[in-house]
Amino acid sequence: MSKEITSRAQDYSQWYNDLVLKGGLADYSAVRGCMVIKPYGFALWENMRDTLDKMFKDTGHVNAYFPLFIPKSFLSKEAAHVEGFAKECAVVTHYRLKNDPNGGGVVVDPEAKLEEELIVRPTSETIIWNTYKDWIQSYRDLPLLINQWANVVRWEMRTRLFLRTAEFLWQEGHTAHATAEEAVAETVQMLNVYADFVENWMALPVIKGVKTISERFAGAEDTYCIEALMQDGKALQAGTSHFLGQNFAKAFDVKFLNKENQLDHVWATSWGVSTRLVGALVMAHSDDQGLILPPRIAPLQVVIVPIYKGDEQKAKIGARADEIMSGLKALGIRVKYDDNDNQRPGWKFAEYEMKGVPVRITLGARDLENNIAEVARRDSKEKRNISLEGIVTYIKELLEDVQQSMFNKAKSYRDEHITPANSWDEFEKLLDEKGGFISAHWDGTAETEEAIKEKTKATIRCIPLDNKQEAGKCILTGKPSTQRVLFARAY
Amino acid sequence: MSKEITSRAQDYSQWYNDLVLKGGLADYSAVRGCMVIKPYGFALWENMRDTLDKMFKDTGHVNAYFPLFIPKSFLSKEAAHVEGFAKECAVVTHYRLKNDPNGGGVVVDPEAKLEEELIVRPTSETIIWNTYKDWIQSYRDLPLLINQWANVVRWEMRTRLFLRTAEFLWQEGHTAHATAEEAVAETVQMLNVYADFVENWMALPVIKGVKTISERFAGAEDTYCIEALMQDGKALQAGTSHFLGQNFAKAFDVKFLNKENQLDHVWATSWGVSTRLVGALVMAHSDDQGLILPPRIAPLQVVIVPIYKGDEQKAKIGARADEIMSGLKALGIRVKYDDNDNQRPGWKFAEYEMKGVPVRITLGARDLENNIAEVARRDSKEKRNISLEGIVTYIKELLEDVQQSMFNKAKSYRDEHITPANSWDEFEKLLDEKGGFISAHWDGTAETEEAIKEKTKATIRCIPLDNKQEAGKCILTGKPSTQRVLFARAY
Repeated sequence: MSKEITSRAQDYSQWYNDLVLKGGLADYSAVRGCMVIKPYGFALWENMRDTLDKMFKDTGHVNAYFPLFIPKSFLSKEAAHVEGFAKECAVVTHYRLKNDPNGGGVVVDPEAKLEEELIVRPTSETIIWNTYKDWIQSYRDLPLLINQWANVVRWEMRTRLFLRTAEFLWQEGHTAHATAEEAVAETVQMLNVYADFVENWMALPVIKGVKTISERFAGAEDTYCIEALMQDGKALQAGTSHFLGQNFAKAFDVKFLNKENQLDHVWATSWGVSTRLVGALVMAHSDDQGLILPPRIAPLQVVIVPIYKGDEQKAKIGARADEIMSGLKALGIRVKYDDNDNQRPGWKFAEYEMKGVPVRITLGARDLENNIAEVARRDSKEKRNISLEGIVTYIKELLEDVQQSMFNKAKSYRDEHITPANSWDEFEKLLDEKGGFISAHWDGTAETEEAIKEKTKATIRCIPLDNKQEAGKCILTGKPSTQRVLFARAY
Repeated sequence: MSKEITSRAQDYSQWYNDLVLKGGLADYSAVRGCMVIKPYGFALWENMRDTLDKMFKDTGHVNAYFPLFIPKSFLSKEAAHVEGFAKECAVVTHYRLKNDPNGGGVVVDPEAKLEEELIVRPTSETIIWNTYKDWIQSYRDLPLLINQWANVVRWEMRTRLFLRTAEFLWQEGHTAHATAEEAVAETVQMLNVYADFVENWMALPVIKGVKTISERFAGAEDTYCIEALMQDGKALQAGTSHFLGQNFAKAFDVKFLNKENQLDHVWATSWGVSTRLVGALVMAHSDDQGLILPPRIAPLQVVIVPIYKGDEQKAKIGARADEIMSGLKALGIRVKYDDNDNQRPGWKFAEYEMKGVPVRITLGARDLENNIAEVARRDSKEKRNISLEGIVTYIKELLEDVQQSMFNKAKSYRDEHITPANSWDEFEKLLDEKGGFISAHWDGTAETEEAIKEKTKATIRCIPLDNKQEAGKCILTGKPSTQRVLFARAY
């Protein structure tokens, strides 16, 4: 298999696909729009999942599991929800196959038709709120702080590995509260958890904001989001947290006796991030040589490559590598020693560069005599000779430095790509020539938002939290506006 | 909600359902045959999953994720496999809904019919081996040691919470090897991993064996299993590990260049355990007061219940409970202090008994003066007053003792329920009056196996590994036999 990667300058989209496929993160599958997450990619997702799971538990949430299937009629119960989710979905209509009477393998048994079709969940608000109805009677049963790790299916027409697939893995939190205030506080808390995770583990700076009405989750009163910027200047929504008001409680008749002994509908939130984050990670940090993974979530943080001639040298280097490995492992560092004789060191260097392993240690016979090793960091490609005495401590600090440097680099790029536009010409020019977020006035109507999207493919990514209020004129219509919002072309 | 439990003597089946529902493990759902795994049940499954996952990784396996959907034609590629799995399954035929022109919500859009139907995976051999074809070229690519945690769907007609549900959670290992010997060794290794887990974490003794041809996995050359015994004398298959030979490699044309530079088909194994194990756990250990969970996987290992009058006593007890909690947590023990004022101590005692928390500590005001606490173990219900000085160490050892006692008790019961039968009358009588495993001679034919099943509902659970060879006569036909096999009625 060729390990050549298309450069970003040549074809950004192909560069991304090359990294995902050749970096061993994922593969296409025989099922249209579904991908296979390969072991290396899954190990990365596991680290992300486990970190998030701990953050959810630390904020009082517990996990549960709800059915994969949603009765068709459930989708129709919340008016906005059905518009958003019923359209492109996988529909189970039958529950049996039978041998083809004409000898052509198996065919659907027409007698095994379901009375009501089942939808493979595109999101679980409906089935979960239908269940919560049985679990909630009084304020004493609240809050209910439940999360689910699951697969979901949305029949996307145009798919991209990780970024947009028919099936994807995600978590969906679904909480129930006695008051609107508490539900809003939960919505904001989980937005902050997501921002913390994406910034401090994925090394990816985000802008926290709220969506416009048009961009809200189908069934939400308010959708909060975190928006990140990719290297091609396009934005990517990295997570959303929804305040659902009483919409689903009303749709599924979930009431509780409050402290005043009166019946009221329950208040809801939902929030989710998905394997899409893996795509964001790849697009935000990597270069033309391959992936660059942030140490905190990299499946492998350090690789040691020996350079030797003959068994005697190999044994000596191996013994020393063992010591370094023990030291690193004792600090909880994920390290591998690659003394596979089938591949040359140069091939290994390229391979681990491709896979984005944050730090590489090269141990040569002569280095050993001088009591040093060459340490290379993946992000900047800087190499240094380090004394073997203090190397374990050095590596530990280096990993932290790589993590911080990756964040700083992404943040500088992002900050340089938030540009104000004060006229339509400027707005269009910035979109085409510079990209990134464009901060501009908008008249607040869905019509203008739609018109701008049609003209430029740019959408309002969010209205940043704590946005500065400032009188101005809409970039398109010239009508009065009270604040700037962030526009961008987006994934 | 009433917490009354039907007794085992009265109705074993209802007792089981009561425990699952009232113990907070799972709930029925709106979707036929699918259940909701509630937070407490899911926490139990998480502990089981995480323990197994570590055991898989310690034996060199990695996780990956393959599509939920399987093209219908894939199932037909392996002749035995399609017979076993194509019949009762969820079939996706359409990918879109549309608004009902007659105003009745949403309906399936007839124009969005899939060219080829997709089956919701009942097991993933076919989609995985279709993928392995692209991943395996040479012996250097082998072995491939991959596991997947996933949901699967089998359209069961009669369902039971955890034991038999249309959708369930499981793991499925799928490995690829260069030789038959290596694949068989892997099959046996994973059987041993399962036995180790079920015995040492779930405190449930198992018999390791191989299935008869009729009971083999559809597409396997050999199916190894672990069989456990429930309190009603029925057996339960707790895990299976399959040697698949070259069947799937041939069906999906997966060949590799061996060390001799010759093309050969790849050798395969698959192995799985599921949320069914939660059902086994409930049925094997619990009593008429509720669940009894083994400490090693119990979501909560220790609960501390204070008994006090007034805030002053509560504060004093709370301070002392904090100390005990810190001590226990420092040892990695999962502990909760329940000072909820809404419930009386007696209610709490019953609740934690119902939930099977292994150890309860009661802290009363007078106890505190005497520097003691009452410690009750859930399995034997024995209570002791323990000095607060050494209580942390005592609890740690007590948890280990409970774990071991539970295993010993289940093992005694199991061992007492392996009974030889030497005549048909004896065989039938044992099945009806004593239950358990019946060790009897069998003539080795599928016809006799089927006849015995029809007459008695008993099946051959397994031929134990390292079975003693012994000349005898088949229990039903009187034909010559070389060994006894284990029969039982089973879940």
